[in-house]
Amino acid sequence: MKIDVITIFPEMFKSPFSQSIIKRAIEENYVELIIHDLRDYSLDKHNKVDDYPYGGGAGMVMKPEPFFRCIEDIGFDDNTEIIFMTPTGQQFNQQVCHEFTQKNHMILLCGHYEGVDQRVIDRFVTKELSIGDYVLTGGELPAMVVVDAVARVIPGVLRKEESYLKDSFQDGLLEHPHYTRPMEYCGMKVPDVLLSGNHGEIRKWRENKSVEITQKKRPDLVRTKKDL
Amino acid sequence: MKIDVITIFPEMFKSPFSQSIIKRAIEENYVELIIHDLRDYSLDKHNKVDDYPYGGGAGMVMKPEPFFRCIEDIGFDDNTEIIFMTPTGQQFNQQVCHEFTQKNHMILLCGHYEGVDQRVIDRFVTKELSIGDYVLTGGELPAMVVVDAVARVIPGVLRKEESYLKDSFQDGLLEHPHYTRPMEYCGMKVPDVLLSGNHGEIRKWRENKSVEITQKKRPDLVRTKKDL
Repeated sequence: MKIDVITIFPEMFKSPFSQSIIKRAIEENYVELIIHDLRDYSLDKHNKVDDYPYGGGAGMVMKPEPFFRCIEDIGFDDNTEIIFMTPTGQQFNQQVCHEFTQKNHMILLCGHYEGVDQRVIDRFVTKELSIGDYVLTGGELPAMVVVDAVARVIPGVLRKEESYLKDSFQDGLLEHPHYTRPMEYCGMKVPDVLLSGNHGEIRKWRENKSVEITQKKRPDLVRTKKDL
Repeated sequence: MKIDVITIFPEMFKSPFSQSIIKRAIEENYVELIIHDLRDYSLDKHNKVDDYPYGGGAGMVMKPEPFFRCIEDIGFDDNTEIIFMTPTGQQFNQQVCHEFTQKNHMILLCGHYEGVDQRVIDRFVTKELSIGDYVLTGGELPAMVVVDAVARVIPGVLRKEESYLKDSFQDGLLEHPHYTRPMEYCGMKVPDVLLSGNHGEIRKWRENKSVEITQKKRPDLVRTKKDL
């Protein structure tokens, strides 16, 4: 999977993928991640990438030319997903994440200021994507979230011990509570059933807890499962 | 606002807040951001922070002792929000974001592997929080998202030109399209109304577009607004 990111803050991407699973995914060539500095594609001698909005109003708008030039320089085909990260986009979720793994190329555009000239979206963008109903200072963290979520489900990236089969959302239920050593800590004990060695009882306890937690915290997920 | 983050990957946080608005928020003391390495609080000579789950199963569980020791070392009071970042948590949104600005101290716990020993959550955590219905390699990117969203709405952080008054979600509607120079680019023109100078018509066009886009992309937000 080739992932190109277009941003005015390429430096932001230096450390988040320098550790952990995504670092390994890049080193082992499951993911080729290229960060492009939008300012390199400015036509302006001051590397300006924004300008005042037509029609007036507060804030600046990111100009079309640098995006057009950068995207055309990267290159794309019918199998390229060109994604604009914006709070007004479709909600990113685990299903969308798995759909992206069917592509071999993604281009992620990070917006800033008030927005991006609509012509960039009209000409290139195949999907406007939001990671949630909150506003951030830019599209960089959302782009990192998408890279991380997609990279980890590419077959081969996760080791067996990092197995994602029982992750939350895979079966429409949230995860049960976890416990590890010590058996008692600061007066708090591990539930007896987990120490019983009775695998049937442990499975039943975990399933019940999953349903109970999902009903309490996310009743919408329980309904979704029933509706399927 | 003091924000403490507890993580096994402190290096990840180096670059994302080294630029832009959040860098300024930190430099101007609106936000004090401290990243703690969980391994520094391990009782183990190998700085081990995880162990096998009681009851068996794939994956590892993060041990209780390092979290207990780190949180107690940081210190907290009744006004401290202690947040565990997890896909099974309450959905983070702009309203929750504004609620956090009423606190003067947040501690963000970043999970990894299969989960965190439940006793950490039972003893300390005031809110389990999810940034969306997708699974990431760890709680670090979600913690960054929360820091970014909260920091930018602290009064004084955003400049007038970065004004958040008309951000998406503030009025329950998504934003209208934006255009800037040039007036025509690659055969694509800016809508005439935005060039008309007629402020009443421009406002009406933008409002109509906001409603149209919200109805098309996020009908749930339109319903929410009507229900209020």
